[in-house]
Amino acid sequence: MAQPKPINVVIVGVGLVGERVVHQLDTQNLRKIFQINSLYTSKKCIKVSKDDTNYTSTSLINELKSTSASTNQDGLKGILEYILDPICLPRPAIVIDCTSNQDLANLYPEILASSSPIHLVTPNKKAFSGLESLNQAIDQVSNKTHNLVFKESTVGAGLPIMSTLRELVVTGDEVLKIEGVFSGTMSYLFNQFSQPNIRTGTKFSEVVAEAKSKGYTEPHPADDLNGSDVARKLCILARNLSTPVSLPEGYQSVPTQSLVPNQLSTVQDPFEFMNRLPNFDDEFERLKDQAFQEGCVLRFVGIIDLTSNPNGELKAGLEKYPFSHPFATLSGSDNIISFSTKRYSPNPLIIQGAGAGADVTAMGVVGDMIKVAERTLGYNI
Amino acid sequence: MAQPKPINVVIVGVGLVGERVVHQLDTQNLRKIFQINSLYTSKKCIKVSKDDTNYTSTSLINELKSTSASTNQDGLKGILEYILDPICLPRPAIVIDCTSNQDLANLYPEILASSSPIHLVTPNKKAFSGLESLNQAIDQVSNKTHNLVFKESTVGAGLPIMSTLRELVVTGDEVLKIEGVFSGTMSYLFNQFSQPNIRTGTKFSEVVAEAKSKGYTEPHPADDLNGSDVARKLCILARNLSTPVSLPEGYQSVPTQSLVPNQLSTVQDPFEFMNRLPNFDDEFERLKDQAFQEGCVLRFVGIIDLTSNPNGELKAGLEKYPFSHPFATLSGSDNIISFSTKRYSPNPLIIQGAGAGADVTAMGVVGDMIKVAERTLGYNI
Repeated sequence: MAQPKPINVVIVGVGLVGERVVHQLDTQNLRKIFQINSLYTSKKCIKVSKDDTNYTSTSLINELKSTSASTNQDGLKGILEYILDPICLPRPAIVIDCTSNQDLANLYPEILASSSPIHLVTPNKKAFSGLESLNQAIDQVSNKTHNLVFKESTVGAGLPIMSTLRELVVTGDEVLKIEGVFSGTMSYLFNQFSQPNIRTGTKFSEVVAEAKSKGYTEPHPADDLNGSDVARKLCILARNLSTPVSLPEGYQSVPTQSLVPNQLSTVQDPFEFMNRLPNFDDEFERLKDQAFQEGCVLRFVGIIDLTSNPNGELKAGLEKYPFSHPFATLSGSDNIISFSTKRYSPNPLIIQGAGAGADVTAMGVVGDMIKVAERTLGYNI
Repeated sequence: MAQPKPINVVIVGVGLVGERVVHQLDTQNLRKIFQINSLYTSKKCIKVSKDDTNYTSTSLINELKSTSASTNQDGLKGILEYILDPICLPRPAIVIDCTSNQDLANLYPEILASSSPIHLVTPNKKAFSGLESLNQAIDQVSNKTHNLVFKESTVGAGLPIMSTLRELVVTGDEVLKIEGVFSGTMSYLFNQFSQPNIRTGTKFSEVVAEAKSKGYTEPHPADDLNGSDVARKLCILARNLSTPVSLPEGYQSVPTQSLVPNQLSTVQDPFEFMNRLPNFDDEFERLKDQAFQEGCVLRFVGIIDLTSNPNGELKAGLEKYPFSHPFATLSGSDNIISFSTKRYSPNPLIIQGAGAGADVTAMGVVGDMIKVAERTLGYNI
């Protein structure tokens, strides 16, 4: 069998995760398959000549960082024009979206509508957890053109969550319940704040401050505490069930308990937010004590329960778990996701591990790229 | 895109697992892709005409059970001749080996050497955990002909163990340690016998007798207690690392602690074995008490440690784990496998759930079949 054509790769949003993708692709094996074509940040870009076989991932990243800031003046419009032009981006191609940009997500149907093979791999949740109309448009275009969309890293980063759900669905298992700690930040906060068998004295606001200083939270911690990240992941899972749950407004249709106190909901300044957060410690302390007296810890979880309601019940919020429960003995900022199904019951299938971080997120992306290469070009990697 | 040709499927060894495979393939979606061509047991077989579109999985299984016992007189030789003849088994084809037969495993290179597309999916561990020469021959032939071999169900049944290891390897992660409870039988025995925080009074032989009566053990429980099943799984994992561990004699090269008392090692009769097992309860009790005093439980685990020795250290045997360790809070006959890697450390990636049983094993097989269909024929299932 002749060596298949290399796949041309565009990475949009070369930040922490995008950089790791570039580095992970820089192995002897993967360089034969993936030819980096161009790299974009929000302001800069570089194009790589296909005759340039001497680049290294480090040289590319350095070139991107040192290039003139004006090379991507047209922004998304310029990127889209470039991507859709098979002379600029020869086919077959993969577009990697490592941004968290809604506007780029809105362009997926247009990219996938291309009649020449151009596939999409992304850890960006926006396209799949927003309006149902966008998610459906992506599915419809992809089914029509056979351009593939892979999104393992949108839930649990490199953990095999999406692929496991898919395997359960395509082999005809029946999902009964999906339950888990889906946010690395929420995991860290509550693993510190509420521990089995130990009545810690640390206040909730202190744990948030510590997480913020370690860089575990968004720049404004309210963006983690509002629970929307968990709601987005639940939405993605719910739309990939054999009978998808209808969520017209996406993550905004998921009932979500925000941990941002009402009085702080309009505070835009993170410093003011952190200064005023201790005023609400007593309420968190009360919830923790109540759980402790029941032999439980508090965890911020997402739940899709398909047993209680014909349309399925989704919710994101605080729940109590006994000290011996796998969710209670979690540590660090690990994710843990349990699938209860017709086959996996009474004991669920559980996957646990780091669900955030540049290297594991990039691993999910590169794993997806390899699947695209195997699926579309017959590579056996 | 025109509908690709259906894939012709032969299932050899239609016992508990094979039957579930036939049933799982009987969905509207999968019937368009997979055309059952023939079903074999050790004594019987049926051939399905490709024009027969009215069969159901139940009608096929019933036909196989009620057919004359003399239809597969030639045994494996007859099966091989049939498989290798593209008129009998039109290409593309998938051979499903649901036996645990070493002789059939030895024929894999011959099957895969076929110049027309014929792929192999199996939960049979024998080919990959025996002699290194056989395992290498399979790899070499498969690389040459591009006929695929998928074996997810050889380790942890339907749990995503092999696919996760592969994803870590191909994306360039570095595996440091793989550790787990790999045997459903051993899991059940020690989850019952040695529990966190509770000093159970049950004797080891009583737990074995209970497991046997529930059908959780092999007909002769020594076949579980000798640890060879765990050694085989370790061998398969070790051979799929980025730098495979050399195990010339396969699972027999893995240092394995047998729980069969020396004095019973030659007892062929399971009834005699079970009658004499209580004589050795004191030793198991002593080990359990010792662990308990250290705040630990006993678990029969497999370990591949690549940090301690340049060639890697493999072992299967009893180890102690603290009451709070994920291995200690396991229940039922669940498997649990942890991957410590450069990316997944200090906290490992953990996968847990039923690692045995007909339906979940069949799910691993059908999942692999779908991957073959997607990889070779461009299906998007």
